Amino acid sequence: MPSTPGKGLEGVVAAETAISDIDGKEGRLSYVGYDIHDLAPNATFEEVIYLLHHLELPDETQLGEIREQLAREREPNDFVMRLMPHLADNCAPMSMLRTAVSASSARDPDGWDVSEEANYRKAIRLCAVFPTMVAYYDRLRNDQDLIAPDPSLSQAANFLWMLKGDKADEDEVHIFDVCLTLHADHTMNASTFAARVCAATLSDIHSAMTAAIAALKGPLHGGANEQVMKMIKEIKDLGGVSKARAYITKRLENKEKVMGFGHRVYKTEDPRATHLRKMAKELADKTGDGSNYEISQEIEKTVMDVKGIYPNVDFYAASVYGYLAIPTDLFTPVFACSRVAGWTAHVREQYADNRLIRPDHEYVGPEPRKWLSITDR
Amino acid sequence: MPSTPGKGLEGVVAAETAISDIDGKEGRLSYVGYDIHDLAPNATFEEVIYLLHHLELPDETQLGEIREQLAREREPNDFVMRLMPHLADNCAPMSMLRTAVSASSARDPDGWDVSEEANYRKAIRLCAVFPTMVAYYDRLRNDQDLIAPDPSLSQAANFLWMLKGDKADEDEVHIFDVCLTLHADHTMNASTFAARVCAATLSDIHSAMTAAIAALKGPLHGGANEQVMKMIKEIKDLGGVSKARAYITKRLENKEKVMGFGHRVYKTEDPRATHLRKMAKELADKTGDGSNYEISQEIEKTVMDVKGIYPNVDFYAASVYGYLAIPTDLFTPVFACSRVAGWTAHVREQYADNRLIRPDHEYVGPEPRKWLSITDR
Repeated sequence: MPSTPGKGLEGVVAAETAISDIDGKEGRLSYVGYDIHDLAPNATFEEVIYLLHHLELPDETQLGEIREQLAREREPNDFVMRLMPHLADNCAPMSMLRTAVSASSARDPDGWDVSEEANYRKAIRLCAVFPTMVAYYDRLRNDQDLIAPDPSLSQAANFLWMLKGDKADEDEVHIFDVCLTLHADHTMNASTFAARVCAATLSDIHSAMTAAIAALKGPLHGGANEQVMKMIKEIKDLGGVSKARAYITKRLENKEKVMGFGHRVYKTEDPRATHLRKMAKELADKTGDGSNYEISQEIEKTVMDVKGIYPNVDFYAASVYGYLAIPTDLFTPVFACSRVAGWTAHVREQYADNRLIRPDHEYVGPEPRKWLSITDR
Repeated sequence: MPSTPGKGLEGVVAAETAISDIDGKEGRLSYVGYDIHDLAPNATFEEVIYLLHHLELPDETQLGEIREQLAREREPNDFVMRLMPHLADNCAPMSMLRTAVSASSARDPDGWDVSEEANYRKAIRLCAVFPTMVAYYDRLRNDQDLIAPDPSLSQAANFLWMLKGDKADEDEVHIFDVCLTLHADHTMNASTFAARVCAATLSDIHSAMTAAIAALKGPLHGGANEQVMKMIKEIKDLGGVSKARAYITKRLENKEKVMGFGHRVYKTEDPRATHLRKMAKELADKTGDGSNYEISQEIEKTVMDVKGIYPNVDFYAASVYGYLAIPTDLFTPVFACSRVAGWTAHVREQYADNRLIRPDHEYVGPEPRKWLSITDR
């Protein structure tokens, strides 16, 4: 029921992009021409970061370089490190990340340099440091010693290492790596668009990232994966998978939202959900704990039966992250650790051919009226 | 030269609003039906805050209430106060404000309550606290004692008091109050739009304000007023008003931007510029220092002669703030101290009839291509 032609800007082209594309009818997602079904099993997240920024896959030298850059830039600067204990004591995870990233502009080695080269370095630095902020935060709030980033590890392996302090096995690292790839970009989603609106004023890339995190936090966007896990936990508390159908049916009858379903763009299954469902199953088999997966399956069937709506990226991501023992309230920050790759690429694309993003409005307020002094009101 | 239909979203209706309206052809701006030419000389900023949020002017009781609410909420919370010295030591002004506002969500007395009432209280709290953050920052970075907010003073008077430590005279307070009124809202400008994009994910009002500050920072948006003053100072350094025409002509010949001119929406004079020009003249006469005003006049004439473009809100705001002895790098934060009134009103309007803002894109990247393993690239 959009009352304004442009309400929600559905179908309105806001920008040209070479970074990703979606065919919502066919359920296809591609990064720079490569189908997500090819990228998910084959590409590492480092290759994806390179691809989104350079619009080509890296050769071995280029991949070595970006890996080395990422590994070198993982430590937050001294200023951010002084703030981190305060943030860990006071902030919810996404508020921490938004604040830490905002603060990190202050001591960026490239300062206010806005050259293309400096912005690329800042972009890689941001991709590198997000996971460290999230892992340090979690350890600080739990009074655990910090675990320094290990430059020999990939983005995926290093995050799990810094978070948990034991080396994850290869299968888990691969699955988490695929998750990072699947979440890395998605055309003009709300947080990417917020970043582009910000960048289009020629504000700096740290500002744009701060705006993106602010938008991702919302439950209609990145915040949904956390809500899915809360729902799964509620069903577990009620008695598990046998209670799932009744729980969901009741929720739908009460016109409550079931998080993790439906997407404005996809009219069929979100191709990312296909991979995440499969990985949730693999982890269920591997861990011998089928509960997250089975409850998810039952929720999916019920929503399909009652509403005919498909799960989106957030739905099975919740189960996968749950199996990987990532704390539920870090699901959305982990999403940010991946999407920062796309955000920074979009911001650089915006800078390269910029025009201020300043839409119009439809005025629906009172007609022109005469000023009245306070005694006459 | 928009290559995409929607590039910059010019003329695309992004939202309905009852808060403000612009007639760009006639050069008219109104808040909730009241012409800015009526509001500027007559309304106090507190009345404007009330108007933007309640869509009516307050009666005496209502005005008393909102004044009292604002006066009561001016102190940043303890957590933000612990961060402020770090921010003052490390951050540029807009980075400080973005970070401090982001952090301030953590100890908001209303927490994660997203009821309409809680969001209104948060909105007023944000309007109240922005100026204190800016003033405290300036005093901390200059190793000056902090000056606590004075609840007996208006928003305008109190800011000048906290910043400078002496009571500004009535004329100056009135002029600054008018500045706050003139900057309070402006339909779908980039920062307001960023706030609405963020709020439309149902992210919280502090997130939306953080995104708005991030966007306002850009030199194509709020950052312009600071650039104007830098230009005036450069002309002063060259020898003053007699050098202005040559300086501007050369700049235009070199295709460099002269900040503070032109506006996407206005095809004639920005009505806010009319008031700011007049106030710059008043302050030039009052202080006996005509330089900012005279240089500005000469710039305005030159740009009009060469390009036929009108000054916008940022142009004479620079002179006025200069006369009020506000540090140049605080001009954009001062803009934020006013615009937060409009931002918070727009975010509440967005929440009240929400739809995710998620535009479309035009894909201009490589055609679908097959995955190649790294050795085959």
